[in-house]
Amino acid sequence: MYVIGVDIGATKISFVLLKGAEVLKKKKIVTPKTKKEIIKELGDNIKYFSLKIRKKEISGVGIGVPGPLDIQRGLILNPPNLTLLENCPLTKIVEKKFRIKIRMDNDVNCFTLAEAVLGAGKGAKIVFGLTLGTGVGGGIVIDKKIYRGAFGGAGEAGHMTINLAGSKCTCGNYGCLEEYCSERFIKRRTGLTPQELEKKARRGDKQARKVFGELGKFLGVGLVNIVNLLSPEVIVVGGGISKAGNLILESARETIKSQILSPLVKKNVKIKKAKLGEFGGAIGAALLVKNR
Amino acid sequence: MYVIGVDIGATKISFVLLKGAEVLKKKKIVTPKTKKEIIKELGDNIKYFSLKIRKKEISGVGIGVPGPLDIQRGLILNPPNLTLLENCPLTKIVEKKFRIKIRMDNDVNCFTLAEAVLGAGKGAKIVFGLTLGTGVGGGIVIDKKIYRGAFGGAGEAGHMTINLAGSKCTCGNYGCLEEYCSERFIKRRTGLTPQELEKKARRGDKQARKVFGELGKFLGVGLVNIVNLLSPEVIVVGGGISKAGNLILESARETIKSQILSPLVKKNVKIKKAKLGEFGGAIGAALLVKNR
Repeated sequence: MYVIGVDIGATKISFVLLKGAEVLKKKKIVTPKTKKEIIKELGDNIKYFSLKIRKKEISGVGIGVPGPLDIQRGLILNPPNLTLLENCPLTKIVEKKFRIKIRMDNDVNCFTLAEAVLGAGKGAKIVFGLTLGTGVGGGIVIDKKIYRGAFGGAGEAGHMTINLAGSKCTCGNYGCLEEYCSERFIKRRTGLTPQELEKKARRGDKQARKVFGELGKFLGVGLVNIVNLLSPEVIVVGGGISKAGNLILESARETIKSQILSPLVKKNVKIKKAKLGEFGGAIGAALLVKNR
Repeated sequence: MYVIGVDIGATKISFVLLKGAEVLKKKKIVTPKTKKEIIKELGDNIKYFSLKIRKKEISGVGIGVPGPLDIQRGLILNPPNLTLLENCPLTKIVEKKFRIKIRMDNDVNCFTLAEAVLGAGKGAKIVFGLTLGTGVGGGIVIDKKIYRGAFGGAGEAGHMTINLAGSKCTCGNYGCLEEYCSERFIKRRTGLTPQELEKKARRGDKQARKVFGELGKFLGVGLVNIVNLLSPEVIVVGGGISKAGNLILESARETIKSQILSPLVKKNVKIKKAKLGEFGGAIGAALLVKNR
């Protein structure tokens, strides 16, 4: 059986066609500017992906979208990064229009599911996924299932307060992890994009390496909070900024070693870079179809 | 069948005899000054509690101790608040010496288990327990089972960094929740004990009420972090300082209402005061015997 996975982001929509663990096709488009066009694109691409297979061989479509969501009702609530889908009952709309089984979850849950089942967290029982990009997102997968908590929304690490006396976050609170580990931090410190800063750092620029190191320290503080609360086996770090890899992760790991109390936890928890690349979210969305 | 529960704290040891959900006997002693004496007291009290019942009717003894622990090996690791039991394989010692089944867990896990099964979290699927006293501790119970994470130690909320620019904590890190929600905070702000401050606040002293309100705000920040990550159904707040009840919890709830992003989570999560009182930890320890 085949499954289609879709990852709807603020700037691009990614699609994959999955058979088992194998990605047969992938595609990326620019996110349209209206809800209507987004839904049309979903339909067109479902058709496109099923061109050479019979529709009844497609067991469903998984969709990842920015949260928060009401999963039970298939409803997108108030996503700060994709306001044009606010209060949109996307699951029902697509299910009805294209007569296919739809599963929807938040994009970072999808990313984490993919990394836990097929990526850097493969084989681990408890995986925390963290994405560092425009914003910071988090997800929890336990025994290959997304942990959503009692009312959904679990794993939300970006708006964890780590520095009350710090700068105001886009969410209105102060000192959120996102203020220190997203593109905004790099912009604030250097005026550069993460890609530009990474290039400089790779060429050996000391100041650039120092900024990544600082970001890594703040990341470490957030990770310590996560590890203290959840004691995951593996934390997988993804998103655009994670491409800097050890430029960030080394100082994050040092912070963990020095700040976690339990010797057992400190010794065993692993911080890894994501493995599946930019289609990870769409792959995870596809896995939703079998996973719930 | 009967179960004995023991809660070993830095200043006192509590014992209960449980039959089902019913507490038949309870007792409290001052914590002895040596490991040897602690073990002797455990033995003497196991005997004392089984005086009127046959020993074979006691299905086991549950022990709560300050963490961190290596549960698998029944080993107390490096508890900052009970150094005289450092690296003590308490489970094996007591099991061997008194020939009875022993279950051990960290004291806040025991507190949370008791409140989740018989107390303020009864009926809830995911319960987070938080104790505010000399230190701040946390525990997670899902479906009436303690969630320990991959390497134990999960639920450790006291050393969550909420204010990097803040004061140095006893653990060596800066701005831990414990710095703002334990006795130390009240001492720092007022020079008083929580009991003295509560008395003043109950008599209407505005300054005293304000200090509890501040503590509640900081508590709220910590709770927001916990709720964002775990999305529990109920958070039960216990420990000596929690006796101040709404003097603290009102401002904590306000902070939650204003800072949590997901409308679903914000609306549904409940913050409750612990119900079982000072023997809660020992009751939870007794529940360990059936619970694992």
